[in-house]
Amino acid sequence: MDGQVRVDVGEARALCIAAYRRHGVPAEDAERAAEQFILCDLLGIPTHGLRRLSNYIGRIKIGGINPTPDIRVTSRLPAVAVVEGDGGLGTVVASRGLEEGIRRAKENGIAYVSCINSNHFGGNASYGWQAADAGLVCISGSNGTPTIAAPGGKTPAIGNNPIGYAAPGPDGRHFILDMALSIASRGKLRAARDKGEPIPEGVALNKDGLPTTDAGEALDGFVLPIGGHKGYGLATAIDILSAVLGGGGIGPGIRHQFNQPDQPSNVSQFFLLIDPAATVGRDAFQQNIIDFAAWIHAQPSVDPSQPGRLPGEGAAERLARNRTEGIPMTRDEYDRLRGLADGSLSGVIPKS
Amino acid sequence: MDGQVRVDVGEARALCIAAYRRHGVPAEDAERAAEQFILCDLLGIPTHGLRRLSNYIGRIKIGGINPTPDIRVTSRLPAVAVVEGDGGLGTVVASRGLEEGIRRAKENGIAYVSCINSNHFGGNASYGWQAADAGLVCISGSNGTPTIAAPGGKTPAIGNNPIGYAAPGPDGRHFILDMALSIASRGKLRAARDKGEPIPEGVALNKDGLPTTDAGEALDGFVLPIGGHKGYGLATAIDILSAVLGGGGIGPGIRHQFNQPDQPSNVSQFFLLIDPAATVGRDAFQQNIIDFAAWIHAQPSVDPSQPGRLPGEGAAERLARNRTEGIPMTRDEYDRLRGLADGSLSGVIPKS
Repeated sequence: MDGQVRVDVGEARALCIAAYRRHGVPAEDAERAAEQFILCDLLGIPTHGLRRLSNYIGRIKIGGINPTPDIRVTSRLPAVAVVEGDGGLGTVVASRGLEEGIRRAKENGIAYVSCINSNHFGGNASYGWQAADAGLVCISGSNGTPTIAAPGGKTPAIGNNPIGYAAPGPDGRHFILDMALSIASRGKLRAARDKGEPIPEGVALNKDGLPTTDAGEALDGFVLPIGGHKGYGLATAIDILSAVLGGGGIGPGIRHQFNQPDQPSNVSQFFLLIDPAATVGRDAFQQNIIDFAAWIHAQPSVDPSQPGRLPGEGAAERLARNRTEGIPMTRDEYDRLRGLADGSLSGVIPKS
Repeated sequence: MDGQVRVDVGEARALCIAAYRRHGVPAEDAERAAEQFILCDLLGIPTHGLRRLSNYIGRIKIGGINPTPDIRVTSRLPAVAVVEGDGGLGTVVASRGLEEGIRRAKENGIAYVSCINSNHFGGNASYGWQAADAGLVCISGSNGTPTIAAPGGKTPAIGNNPIGYAAPGPDGRHFILDMALSIASRGKLRAARDKGEPIPEGVALNKDGLPTTDAGEALDGFVLPIGGHKGYGLATAIDILSAVLGGGGIGPGIRHQFNQPDQPSNVSQFFLLIDPAATVGRDAFQQNIIDFAAWIHAQPSVDPSQPGRLPGEGAAERLARNRTEGIPMTRDEYDRLRGLADGSLSGVIPKS
């Protein structure tokens, strides 16, 4: 039963919406939340797609996520807003924030939105893609539970905060970059531990803050950020842009989605949106992006069958294919999705 | 004559202004340009400080930098502007751009400025510091001559584009992060080559795009970006935010400040500025930054004498000390500065 299946996009969306509705999420919010998962799956980022639905629902059931949040937008100036998420689904809160930002950026040429008191929002990629679909350049990010030590430290000080960039590309093939700041994910460490394999040097520290190549020790310790103090610095900048600017939680104010699943995580997201219509004009911007991609494509590669690309080119190809052929998932994942939708399965409380 | 000296800040500034004036830079522009160098030196980043003056003047003398640019600002909406730098000193063009951005962000809560047809602008740190002094959060960056290959590539595709973040801190001790995207600088590779030492694995590729630990081969090849495709992706995002959005040069349109010093470099810078007064208010923001720093400081370190810090804390300490004790430089550097100011020395044409 572990074979791969392709699930029609409309069916997958409807099942996801039904599952949310069954667990008390209002129709409009269920549609918003489903759209982020669907888009991540279409773009080929299943780790932030429907695979997460069971955990989100598990957290709704134990009070970690508020299915009916009273989301409030405050704005002191037209191009700036803060969205108070009331502990709702991160995909709902951030999606509302992005919508605010897109509207404000189209009116003002630029906008900034901070979404506070939010939960795990999936990945930057789906929001960036939506912003690019609306014709906007987007910088986004989220803070998270501290899992990375400060340089020289031996306790988690800062989250492995993901940052994203997006820009409208030709014919809807957008530029997107969505990256966490660790060299390796904890998922990769788990895979190495399960296989009994060592991990490369320079990827993680043990719980005492000392270098290790033992995957188990690394899982009890910390992943290291890209570029050492550079990745650490980027993580702190993302905390400032998402939480400090909007008045959201940092450090001790954030609860872990896995270790404290019954508590609102109190994480924050941000969106910075710029309309090329306010700089060079949309047509000129489009041509500039085409020229930029052509320059990258023209560079010779060590393996000529693997030409250089701009970030997002692979995702755009996967999107086109998955829209036509359906979202790839395992038979188990498909069964779980249907079970969550028809009520025969319950959400799973996430564990780290 | 190679001893270290400390030069009074006022004297250093006056000498730098005199040197620029002697080479045709108008008074106001000379002051702007000097201020960026002085601030980098004060913050302890001498690689982007007065040490560069001789090269900038050398390029003015051979036509690579326009000493009297006709800088023009165009703006379609109040919070967005593009600054056409006319091949002027990057420190003048970017400083004009930052000034535009600060004014517009204070009126609109947020602003974006792209500075195109610019030259080397020093480092992000000094601009970020000025933005933070004005009470604003700042994201900035510059594109540059391609020196980094795309993943799998064997030619320079993208610049080692620096990115900067800044935020106002308590009592003028601001958060600043200024980083290029390579793991190691070419300066470090040169130092290793001169000492006959190998470089670590994973830092550079040879001219065929293959891994090397030979510093000389690496200098003929490419430095590698932090986090592989992540650093490469960040570099492409900075090209989009600085040049593609503003209509500036990318890839083949950029000339190398060292290899083509007599040509305007045609690089672009950008500034994104957000006013905390438009989100949580300046006082609340200040308290949030204090709380964030306190959280980082409270984390235990492997070496208790080296506590965790937010980026910029060291720079703020150096600024305070250098303001009082003077800017540290070698006797040779001081003599060169005086010679450029009194006309007894000429600028040096930069070489890679």
